[in-house]
Amino acid sequence: MAGRQEKDEKGVTAEKDEFSEWFTQIMLKADLADYTAVSGCIAFRPTSYAIWEKIRDEVDKRFKKEGIKNVYFPLFIPEKVLSKEAEHVEGFTPEVAWVTHAGESKLKERLAIRPTSETIMYDSFSKWIRSWRDLPMRLNQWNNVVRWEFKHPVPFLRTREFLWNEGHTVFASKEEAEAEMDFVIGTYDDVCRNFLALPSLIGRKSDKEKFAGAEYTVSMEFLMPHGKAIQGPDFHHDGQIFAKAYDITFLNEEGKKEYAYQNTFAITTRMLGVMFAIHSDKNGLVLPPRIAPTQAVIVPILFDDSRDEVLTLARDVEEKLSKFEVLLDLREEHKPGYKFNEWELKGVPLRIEVGPKDVERKEVVLVRRDTGKKEAVKVRSLAAKVERMLEEIQESLLEKAEKFLRAGVVEAKDLLSVEKVIRSKKIAFVPLCRGVECEDMLKYKSGGAKVLNIPFDGEKRAKGKTCVVCGKKADYLAYVGKSY
Amino acid sequence: MAGRQEKDEKGVTAEKDEFSEWFTQIMLKADLADYTAVSGCIAFRPTSYAIWEKIRDEVDKRFKKEGIKNVYFPLFIPEKVLSKEAEHVEGFTPEVAWVTHAGESKLKERLAIRPTSETIMYDSFSKWIRSWRDLPMRLNQWNNVVRWEFKHPVPFLRTREFLWNEGHTVFASKEEAEAEMDFVIGTYDDVCRNFLALPSLIGRKSDKEKFAGAEYTVSMEFLMPHGKAIQGPDFHHDGQIFAKAYDITFLNEEGKKEYAYQNTFAITTRMLGVMFAIHSDKNGLVLPPRIAPTQAVIVPILFDDSRDEVLTLARDVEEKLSKFEVLLDLREEHKPGYKFNEWELKGVPLRIEVGPKDVERKEVVLVRRDTGKKEAVKVRSLAAKVERMLEEIQESLLEKAEKFLRAGVVEAKDLLSVEKVIRSKKIAFVPLCRGVECEDMLKYKSGGAKVLNIPFDGEKRAKGKTCVVCGKKADYLAYVGKSY
Repeated sequence: MAGRQEKDEKGVTAEKDEFSEWFTQIMLKADLADYTAVSGCIAFRPTSYAIWEKIRDEVDKRFKKEGIKNVYFPLFIPEKVLSKEAEHVEGFTPEVAWVTHAGESKLKERLAIRPTSETIMYDSFSKWIRSWRDLPMRLNQWNNVVRWEFKHPVPFLRTREFLWNEGHTVFASKEEAEAEMDFVIGTYDDVCRNFLALPSLIGRKSDKEKFAGAEYTVSMEFLMPHGKAIQGPDFHHDGQIFAKAYDITFLNEEGKKEYAYQNTFAITTRMLGVMFAIHSDKNGLVLPPRIAPTQAVIVPILFDDSRDEVLTLARDVEEKLSKFEVLLDLREEHKPGYKFNEWELKGVPLRIEVGPKDVERKEVVLVRRDTGKKEAVKVRSLAAKVERMLEEIQESLLEKAEKFLRAGVVEAKDLLSVEKVIRSKKIAFVPLCRGVECEDMLKYKSGGAKVLNIPFDGEKRAKGKTCVVCGKKADYLAYVGKSY
Repeated sequence: MAGRQEKDEKGVTAEKDEFSEWFTQIMLKADLADYTAVSGCIAFRPTSYAIWEKIRDEVDKRFKKEGIKNVYFPLFIPEKVLSKEAEHVEGFTPEVAWVTHAGESKLKERLAIRPTSETIMYDSFSKWIRSWRDLPMRLNQWNNVVRWEFKHPVPFLRTREFLWNEGHTVFASKEEAEAEMDFVIGTYDDVCRNFLALPSLIGRKSDKEKFAGAEYTVSMEFLMPHGKAIQGPDFHHDGQIFAKAYDITFLNEEGKKEYAYQNTFAITTRMLGVMFAIHSDKNGLVLPPRIAPTQAVIVPILFDDSRDEVLTLARDVEEKLSKFEVLLDLREEHKPGYKFNEWELKGVPLRIEVGPKDVERKEVVLVRRDTGKKEAVKVRSLAAKVERMLEEIQESLLEKAEKFLRAGVVEAKDLLSVEKVIRSKKIAFVPLCRGVECEDMLKYKSGGAKVLNIPFDGEKRAKGKTCVVCGKKADYLAYVGKSY
């Protein structure tokens, strides 16, 4: 079959459990990303960038409604400004890209390419904030950041430049600042679950794993097909740590000077990679309909003697589905079989086949990308059916991902079981004490797994349990896994 | 008067004809931008960034409808890749910021921060384009670029980092490529005229002034209040110049290899500065309603004995105007006079005053920011009136800007008149031949004015006229002025 032959050249040749090869093939063959002349930096091709725009717009809409305003700060951070908060700078300097020259001139001071913008923004915040009336000040920016990692780069999942939002908010009291967490993590979780169809493990990082410069970090952790966890969106409560380093003070209602309280939060283009990896299969990309730039593709099956009728029906179908993102594939140079494979590879959620027999029957054939299930549908009820089916695909992908995540988390009561769970490519749910030595030992004994986070009810659930390392009273139950 | 006193501290103290001081004061005092720790790079504060988002969204909508797709390419360009097209690299290297180190390591090859992305994108384009079926390929990105200018930086107008779109399109034939110009310049002109209320001089650059690497450049030139011209959006037709340097070829329908034809085009955050400068006045910022993040502000005038009724009316007004971007200023710490001055300074197009007498009369007072004209309006007809008045302000700002531009362009038939026009801070409309020597001489004799561009009918209109420099037959009429 011509279609099959063509597929063998173009299709994915690796199985999902050869994760790295499989993932790379999908990235390149589904035209999501390409390598560039800069090592570790990718080109986002139209499909992946359109998905990022949808994520950005959904998050942005919710932020704006809440009163968070967008700004834009410089790409560059002078070395002196970057270095003001000791823990923060220590966390980032090993990965900073430095500009040393402009044109023919050597700069007087090196400029860091922002790995994150706390330091350059807070320098301005200290000028902008004078009194309690200026607070809360809730700002955000959508931009590019650079972290020159020396680990093996993977498209979307680990790239030296990536895109993100960075929210930076300032409050007069710790209570107000901390109360923002529910909104922020709720927003990210809503967009991840209901658009990307991705559930996650939400909780607080251990002190050892929190963000450099934060008082504490709340993270969303996802389980990848090959059993590694990967960190997604996060929220950091910085307390007064940066306020003290960058002199962000305000006069309170009594006219007394106080340091402000701050949060930062982010969602990054890494989420594209997480979504591509979790939903896709051996035939290529699978995309949730609500995030897919093309939701349905119409492929007419043309023969000389019925060409006109089939084309008329195909155009009628396109017209009837105009409220969806629909593509009518009229290319003459490829056979239908080739097109089926191509759109499968590229993850279009629904295929609509229109052939000569359909003309008489006044129907078309719908094929779901996620299950491959075919169904003949009358043209007169098509729009309603497509709407329902797209919703079903969306829900079914989320359910499948939830099932995978649930099956991927296993309770472990002692070190031996932790090691076994980790070896079986799952996440262990483990009673631990707060001791950093125990966390270090756990990592050593489990072959490199770390505390991903501690669910909000992790302390309550630890009652009566003992730390898997030292055997003393456990402080919390924590998710433990190998992390990307 | 308390309001007046407060204004003297906060308001603009320079007149518009002290352009540099006046402009800087508006940028800072209207909270549009702030200087940062990085010389030549500004922070975009919420108002200016919200305006940029509107410009971006308007342009982006039109591009997408036309089939142009967004992508994202790396911030970095390896030195070798940047250097492939000789004229292009020569145009940019004096202003390139170079990354030489990452963390503690020296990089093997220096990386340029993109001053524009032709070179890194076309490296990929040459891989992506194989046959005529891949064409046209019309891509665009919204990003940040860096040009390390050594001239005095001015917020928005000349900054070392700025934001823009860069369109990069590839066609199989020169005709198709050139036909894109009307759409692109038409889009930019539409957004500039109908949203920013800014008319411009549109035409082709002279060969001397075209973009480094282009066959020709079409530009939009704006006249600033202090008589200098400034270049806005532009469109470059690159012919096969980059295609030959970066090997962008395709197999045509006959199976023969051909070089492709390319265009690039851009609109930048400089347009914010141009708009702020042209419309604003001695009282501060003036914004066209269609681009203003806040279109109207409601200021209640509160006295103890009528407080509740006035607040009820103010809230009713807010409710009635919910389809507009309206702000109800309920701050208790400032008097109405202070608020009037503040919103005037910040350029809100319409002020709505609600006082005790208005309650009985069932009316409010509307005050136009552009003219200061006051008008009492019945509450029952308020929404329709506000809609009409915002439209009137929008049109009136465009008309005023058109009048200013028309008055600022003066025909000049000889070198002496050119010099006189330039000295009077206007743009001269001048018959010229194509000779580069004549263009150089013109610049020298006029005290630094250059050819801005040549209107599309500039050749036709030169019939029977002679070059102001050499006295031979003129090839075209050109706009000549001092440029930012």
